[in-house]
Amino acid sequence: MKTIVLAGGVGGAKLVDGLASLLSPGDLTIIVNTGDDFYHYGLLICPDLDTVCYTLAGIANPDTGWGRKNETWQVLKGLETLGGPIWFQMGDLDLATHLERTRLVKQGISLTQVTQQFCKRWGILHQVLPMSDDPISTMVETVEYGEIHFQEYFVKLKCQPHIKGFRFAGLEKAKPSPEVLEAISRAEMVIFAPSNPWVSIDPIIKIPEVKIALKAKKMIAVSPIIEGHTIKGPAAKMFQDFGIVPSALAVAEHYKDILTAFILDKKDEIFLEKLMQWGIIPFSTDIYMKCFEDRQFLASEIIKLIDTIQTMGSQ
Amino acid sequence: MKTIVLAGGVGGAKLVDGLASLLSPGDLTIIVNTGDDFYHYGLLICPDLDTVCYTLAGIANPDTGWGRKNETWQVLKGLETLGGPIWFQMGDLDLATHLERTRLVKQGISLTQVTQQFCKRWGILHQVLPMSDDPISTMVETVEYGEIHFQEYFVKLKCQPHIKGFRFAGLEKAKPSPEVLEAISRAEMVIFAPSNPWVSIDPIIKIPEVKIALKAKKMIAVSPIIEGHTIKGPAAKMFQDFGIVPSALAVAEHYKDILTAFILDKKDEIFLEKLMQWGIIPFSTDIYMKCFEDRQFLASEIIKLIDTIQTMGSQ
Repeated sequence: MKTIVLAGGVGGAKLVDGLASLLSPGDLTIIVNTGDDFYHYGLLICPDLDTVCYTLAGIANPDTGWGRKNETWQVLKGLETLGGPIWFQMGDLDLATHLERTRLVKQGISLTQVTQQFCKRWGILHQVLPMSDDPISTMVETVEYGEIHFQEYFVKLKCQPHIKGFRFAGLEKAKPSPEVLEAISRAEMVIFAPSNPWVSIDPIIKIPEVKIALKAKKMIAVSPIIEGHTIKGPAAKMFQDFGIVPSALAVAEHYKDILTAFILDKKDEIFLEKLMQWGIIPFSTDIYMKCFEDRQFLASEIIKLIDTIQTMGSQ
Repeated sequence: MKTIVLAGGVGGAKLVDGLASLLSPGDLTIIVNTGDDFYHYGLLICPDLDTVCYTLAGIANPDTGWGRKNETWQVLKGLETLGGPIWFQMGDLDLATHLERTRLVKQGISLTQVTQQFCKRWGILHQVLPMSDDPISTMVETVEYGEIHFQEYFVKLKCQPHIKGFRFAGLEKAKPSPEVLEAISRAEMVIFAPSNPWVSIDPIIKIPEVKIALKAKKMIAVSPIIEGHTIKGPAAKMFQDFGIVPSALAVAEHYKDILTAFILDKKDEIFLEKLMQWGIIPFSTDIYMKCFEDRQFLASEIIKLIDTIQTMGSQ
């Protein structure tokens, strides 16, 4: 069974890690949001790609979920001494990734190829694909600061500003890579990781050619919200800014027209009926991932659900 | 007495350090070669500027003469893991300099202003000026590899290739900064530090407007060669590649038409007479700088010589 998983940062990376431990590289391809990417100190930084890859390689910081384990901060200390901006945390090992990626991209090597090269070095067997080799920037329209880049909203301003909307700059002109299109065309099932629907999944599924390619596919989303709260990140707050009560159901409604099934936490079983009314297969289980076993458990639950859906489809 | 000193890397930085310990910021301006500058991993690296500034700030690596003391190498180790080029040694603290400089220059801030800003942070009171804010690249024409950038010759290929000539790419169109021109116009004496004549001093004095501005000035050069050998760097080897026996005299001859005086080591007193025949005031002393006291001693000898020249001039 060929699957692809669409992922953003920390939550997405955790599920990807669980799925990769159960599905062979031939059966699982990971497509990662690059809307968060930005240039800082002239370096191309791809936060979600790095979080996914570091997690899969077993070199992610277990405390933060992002960045590297056994990280040091010498360069950042040096930058602070010189008065440079240090709101974006770049550890020394992490910086090596940004430097080498920037060097290769400047040579004309695509982000897809660079990511492949890095995965090889890091011993990652599954294919990890940036959603596009073309630049797409998630811009956040805020009440307080006007339009700012997502990293400014997320890291510099710590999600304090109130959001009016999003714009994915470059999205209309962006093409998915041939690798992304091929992976989607081969896939029998598309999983949306428990990532932020507004800024992690939307930028991927709204790329025009991706949108078209996904049309015929069965899609399953995992809720990033449990009992109205996000484990990490501003998804719940974003729903609130838009005047929507944050909940697993609100996430499902966000994807209402395209989902085959929706996975939510047992604590949110109150929403099962509504999902069925919408024609979405509901599936409740423990979705909170605290440790590797939780990641693997959730992955196994998803695989079980996929099997059920396929059995239903073939009946 | 207003002086300027023209300097390249390690040897130049040592003399600059000695001079700065004896002359007030109002009396000494340092103009540094930027022909060695290059982009690596997308970062603007200015090896000579950094060596001079690190030395003046007391934060240079005392063992190498370049780079930072108490340096760590985490990023370089990370780059090695990713298969990036590591022939150019960038320590973590050093990298902070390259990153912040690149960030500021990309914002349109001139290298002169960036250097001023860094000097303030590092507690350097003397004015350190890059020779130009325009890019000038010292290209080395080699027998084995054709034309290559100086850093490739110097660091990557460890000065192994045989040299046929040099080209200072961008030199004709480059302008010295207003600060450089003002410093030269105020100066009563110009000191050439014991730096490589071909690749450290020539790029500075061959900038068209610098050349014109220097015309009326008294110039003193300190030999970077003692008994036919350079303390550090490839100056002696370069003379050999050109079929010239390397010696203090060969250095003096290189500058023959413009020098007022030439300072060489006591061990090279054999050349004193020849210098006098050329109309260059010879001055022999101990020029080998092993410790800070040696730097200060040589600086004091230079100041003595300048006083003598000025007394002669006023008689």
